[in-house]
Amino acid sequence: MITLESIRRDICEAVTKVRERKPLAPSITNTVTINLVANAQLAVGGSAAMVYMPDEGEAMAGAGDAMYINVGTIYPVYEETLPRAARALQKNGTPWVLDPVGSGMGRLRQKLLCAFMQYKPTIIRCNASEAIALANFWRLGNGGKDSGMRGVDATDSVAEARQAAVALARWTGGAVAVSGERDLVTDGKVTVLSSGGSPLMPRVTGMGCSLGGVAAVYAAVASPFIAVLTATAIYNLAGRRAGSKVEGPGHFQAQFLDELYLAKPEDVAANPLELEEEPDGTH
Amino acid sequence: MITLESIRRDICEAVTKVRERKPLAPSITNTVTINLVANAQLAVGGSAAMVYMPDEGEAMAGAGDAMYINVGTIYPVYEETLPRAARALQKNGTPWVLDPVGSGMGRLRQKLLCAFMQYKPTIIRCNASEAIALANFWRLGNGGKDSGMRGVDATDSVAEARQAAVALARWTGGAVAVSGERDLVTDGKVTVLSSGGSPLMPRVTGMGCSLGGVAAVYAAVASPFIAVLTATAIYNLAGRRAGSKVEGPGHFQAQFLDELYLAKPEDVAANPLELEEEPDGTH
Amino acid sequence: MITLESIRRDICEAVTKVRERKPLAPSITNTVTINLVANAQLAVGGSAAMVYMPDEGEAMAGAGDAMYINVGTIYPVYEETLPRAARALQKNGTPWVLDPVGSGMGRLRQKLLCAFMQYKPTIIRCNASEAIALANFWRLGNGGKDSGMRGVDATDSVAEARQAAVALARWTGGAVAVSGERDLVTDGKVTVLSSGGSPLMPRVTGMGCSLGGVAAVYAAVASPFIAVLTATAIYNLAGRRAGSKVEGPGHFQAQFLDELYLAKPEDVAANPLELEEEPDGTH
Repeated sequence: MITLESIRRDICEAVTKVRERKPLAPSITNTVTINLVANAQLAVGGSAAMVYMPDEGEAMAGAGDAMYINVGTIYPVYEETLPRAARALQKNGTPWVLDPVGSGMGRLRQKLLCAFMQYKPTIIRCNASEAIALANFWRLGNGGKDSGMRGVDATDSVAEARQAAVALARWTGGAVAVSGERDLVTDGKVTVLSSGGSPLMPRVTGMGCSLGGVAAVYAAVASPFIAVLTATAIYNLAGRRAGSKVEGPGHFQAQFLDELYLAKPEDVAANPLELEEEPDGTH
Repeated sequence: MITLESIRRDICEAVTKVRERKPLAPSITNTVTINLVANAQLAVGGSAAMVYMPDEGEAMAGAGDAMYINVGTIYPVYEETLPRAARALQKNGTPWVLDPVGSGMGRLRQKLLCAFMQYKPTIIRCNASEAIALANFWRLGNGGKDSGMRGVDATDSVAEARQAAVALARWTGGAVAVSGERDLVTDGKVTVLSSGGSPLMPRVTGMGCSLGGVAAVYAAVASPFIAVLTATAIYNLAGRRAGSKVEGPGHFQAQFLDELYLAKPEDVAANPLELEEEPDGTH
Repeated sequence: MITLESIRRDICEAVTKVRERKPLAPSITNTVTINLVANAQLAVGGSAAMVYMPDEGEAMAGAGDAMYINVGTIYPVYEETLPRAARALQKNGTPWVLDPVGSGMGRLRQKLLCAFMQYKPTIIRCNASEAIALANFWRLGNGGKDSGMRGVDATDSVAEARQAAVALARWTGGAVAVSGERDLVTDGKVTVLSSGGSPLMPRVTGMGCSLGGVAAVYAAVASPFIAVLTATAIYNLAGRRAGSKVEGPGHFQAQFLDELYLAKPEDVAANPLELEEEPDGTH
């Protein structure tokens, strides 16, 4: 049975194992925050490698211990690269994280996100509006909520996206994390609310993307639910610590990477969490 | 009538409004400095979203409160993306900033820059050599000056580009900013010289690009002239402050983003400015 | 004759000349670390410009004082861009640095790396596994060693790559640098081992890429061997200094750029070096 105690123990173990094993979590990700994704993966102890080409996406799906796919900026070649990578990940049983940035925008982006339904991403990491939009695309039920979105920013609250997140997790059989003031992580059966962070985090681009990349690193050594919960917890811890030491977003980013690197496993595990059970059959 | 007092009051208002409204200023911009553009836009209080695909460029031209187009690194798909976005921006009456990086280099880059003439970018943000090159492309007269250029760096002075800048502003009916040791901002009728900054700024890539992105954010709440002048003033203020606190370009970038975030509207407005009228009929 | 004294004198001169002349070293490089490459080039006193398009790659091969080509992330358009740029560089006699990131991965990447054999890159900058893989591709002999590789990370030691590095240098007639705990730089006749740096360096993405970009800057004013040795020495010096002042990888990057900017030529020249002669005829 999942309890707060078992969760904290598993988080502690995930942080430690990544530092010992340095798992490789390659990415196909946007050009805006690609550098921060790699640096955050390295800071927690993982290895990074980024590709765009179809055969390289497929090769990385085989070579990686886990993978991160983020559709933040779409290139034409992704029409072939992303489905090939996702298919290979599913076939290999390699855990992967989907970050459905800007779902709803663009024909190719929408087509790719719809295609991902059948490949069942192990972890979905997104904001509230993206969770609602993706549940809509996949016709999974969302409490009758239409997604709001402004560019790549959410206009819906985390609470409003909860039903969509649970539906997504039940479909994939994996875990879903919705970032917001208080972050929600669910495996469709239980939901954890994780808090911390800093008001400076929305003033730095790529905090969400890099959380997804770090979740992929942890997915190499832990279950999808624990992996994305560990990533969320270390982000909330490092964010709170960094926010208390700096005056603005520029130094925040540098301090945040330092805090990811320095965080003790037991401190990550002790970050505030609340555990709630999901009622059955919500979709 | 435009006076230094009215300018300072308008700058103060632009800084304040952006922090209240968080306008969305999407970008199509180069991969070298894309992260800094987004972070600078966030630091001053705006929202960022970056795209490459034609339909997404067009969608962002509709969804954004203003837009930023920078041709620093060209992809093949831009042949379709950039004209579609520019056309949509003009049609929607959405203010946008053109950053004609490296004008003169490359067939597609030159073709795109020429095509922009008819779409009349609301704001042009560039260095001295780019202003001269663009005025040449557009056959607007430039005081008989040929543009120098070394890679993406200017070899001409701001003073040498003044006539080109005025001609460009008169053509577009918007504003033009030429960055240099002392920055020039003109609407074709009056010209403001803005000073400040730090000798470290040319040692950090993307100070000009991110200024363009920030000008787009301000263009969502102010006239083109005030928008790019506000961006220039906050850059000169933040640059001077950051430069006085650090020893090199690495910490400069972090401190600079902090100073953008922390700058008080009245301090931005008080940054040194000189106002001059342009004689009539210079083109 | 090359002695440690002549090497130190030449390094000192290269650092000084770059600060005086600000040579332009354009790049075709990966999107992960492109910003750090540019910032490191600027920090040591050079100028940067990044392109992707075929005609712009060729133009930069003519306009640059030296060039940097890094295959870390491949785009489809590189199939035309990279050979055209390399051909022009060879034809113009412009020094250039090849960074064969991830050699062995991907059809197009491998094809491009094989094609580079005939264009004889002036400097090859890589990790141990990439040196071995490239020597294998080019059938230059490698001591019978097959390359290991994990994503873009080396699994071979610098010592294991020495024979491959010497063979590559003898083929190109230029210099080869293999990064590792102790860095190896060879011109095929003599080999220098350069030490310093910080354990934090592998926790920051792009230290190797940006070293390649900086080597291109120095190649504009010095021989290939001295250029890449100067880059290696300033990286080892700046890395050691930065590592002693920070607690984690976030502030490391900022401090490292500051140290590149602040390093005195005589301190770079004094960085620990060992000089060894290569026995004749190893290939």
